[in-house]
Amino acid sequence: MTGAMLPVGGELQGRIHVLPVRVYYEDTDAAGVVYHANYLRFCERGRTEMLRAIGVELGEVQARDNLVFVVHTGEIEWRRPARLDDALTVETALTSLGKASVLMRQVVRRGAQDIVRFNVRVACMDLATSKATPVPDHLRTKFEAFVGEV
Amino acid sequence: MTGAMLPVGGELQGRIHVLPVRVYYEDTDAAGVVYHANYLRFCERGRTEMLRAIGVELGEVQARDNLVFVVHTGEIEWRRPARLDDALTVETALTSLGKASVLMRQVVRRGAQDIVRFNVRVACMDLATSKATPVPDHLRTKFEAFVGEV
Amino acid sequence: MTGAMLPVGGELQGRIHVLPVRVYYEDTDAAGVVYHANYLRFCERGRTEMLRAIGVELGEVQARDNLVFVVHTGEIEWRRPARLDDALTVETALTSLGKASVLMRQVVRRGAQDIVRFNVRVACMDLATSKATPVPDHLRTKFEAFVGEV
Amino acid sequence: MTGAMLPVGGELQGRIHVLPVRVYYEDTDAAGVVYHANYLRFCERGRTEMLRAIGVELGEVQARDNLVFVVHTGEIEWRRPARLDDALTVETALTSLGKASVLMRQVVRRGAQDIVRFNVRVACMDLATSKATPVPDHLRTKFEAFVGEV
Repeated sequence: MTGAMLPVGGELQGRIHVLPVRVYYEDTDAAGVVYHANYLRFCERGRTEMLRAIGVELGEVQARDNLVFVVHTGEIEWRRPARLDDALTVETALTSLGKASVLMRQVVRRGAQDIVRFNVRVACMDLATSKATPVPDHLRTKFEAFVGEV
Repeated sequence: MTGAMLPVGGELQGRIHVLPVRVYYEDTDAAGVVYHANYLRFCERGRTEMLRAIGVELGEVQARDNLVFVVHTGEIEWRRPARLDDALTVETALTSLGKASVLMRQVVRRGAQDIVRFNVRVACMDLATSKATPVPDHLRTKFEAFVGEV
Repeated sequence: MTGAMLPVGGELQGRIHVLPVRVYYEDTDAAGVVYHANYLRFCERGRTEMLRAIGVELGEVQARDNLVFVVHTGEIEWRRPARLDDALTVETALTSLGKASVLMRQVVRRGAQDIVRFNVRVACMDLATSKATPVPDHLRTKFEAFVGEV
Repeated sequence: MTGAMLPVGGELQGRIHVLPVRVYYEDTDAAGVVYHANYLRFCERGRTEMLRAIGVELGEVQARDNLVFVVHTGEIEWRRPARLDDALTVETALTSLGKASVLMRQVVRRGAQDIVRFNVRVACMDLATSKATPVPDHLRTKFEAFVGEV
């Protein structure tokens, strides 16, 4: 399935969320390819839309619970360059759910090709203290149905 | 019509192109609003998708004709702040077509509210010389059907 | 005077603040030049460092006075492309001081060449109400010594 | 030594390059902290300035040798948040030199505090083929004097 056929915010395909992302000039650099740090922007869009798809709005979480999900550690492979006008997809999966953090696996693809692979631990942080804090139960319940190996 | 109901690359509604844009953390700043320069990124997405909708791929134009469309002058009004998770739209219209440049009018909206207004002259530039150059006929023909006051 | 000889945060040269900015891959795009919206980032660095040079820290203003300076309207000319590794300077001048806003003139240069010219009105906004509010006296006093035609 | 006392492009302190980086609104997000992907921009500035300090200009390498250094794999820890107006430094060290790639260790600091740690393998890529290619001898010679554990 190509990115162009997906809805604007992407969709869940089983436990995996798939988001279409188009490459614009803003994403590229003078080497003619997507600037490496911008894949992390694409991946954040993927995580955000996956959460939205399972009923979690990050802005609401920040406003109501005074907490944010912050990236904590990540391993990233830039495997192939993407280029201007490419229609990419970002695949996002929840691979495990800890007390105060979530492990996610993300792949940026162009059709069948892996462009970037990103394994990231996202921690739940209390905005008042800037400290890690347990994932609240109302979010944990929503996450649980989507956790698993992929 | 809300952004969420539009296709990924937006659509032409008469002569106006409408692109949905979602606000992510990457777009915001520590004042809690969309960072002012990022509206220019949103507007570039709008121009690019309008051109794609009328049959012009910018990457192809650069590769085949060795020319790029570069912003030349702009007037911009930041009228209201947009915020995290907002579903915006970018409206793009071709208001006039010169020998070597195009005038476009763009509005970033949240529902009925104007967030940003941007009037921009985009010049056709020869990559070899970095000089302005006439818009090629095969592009001019495509533009002409969409030029007009809005 | 070249950018390389200036201090990290730039310096006041009479009423004009001059900030050195180096062009990195992050700033460029696939056309091989600085991406147009990034000049607005450079200009914001210039405004911020000018204010710091005259004793105004924006983070402190936000924390203590609960107000931010937000760009309101701007006219921008992209006159020549800048490229990877270019050593640029951003010149910033306060051209007039209103009740609730400040008018600034900024030029991004490469040596003697103008790259971008930006005239921008920056408004003082109350974070609680998102409305324009008078520039507080303790800031106004600091601004007044630097206002003038250039 | 604080960032403010370093020259614009940073300096070598033994084998480690230290670059001052100031945090502006452009770098932050609506959680009030530096947006996670932007540390990779800071790190790229650090790598670029280290290379410049040892006599390697990336734009020149691209133009003359038709090759670019591209990030290949990375491990990143986001340890503490940085905030608006923070004066940070980026420390960059060459930890090992392979046939077609270089391993670098980077730390973004605020005074004595580690903010972000990034271990990154940067590969030498031929722009014509988009394939890895041996680091040319004229660059290898320059790198060798700075390689080592830190």
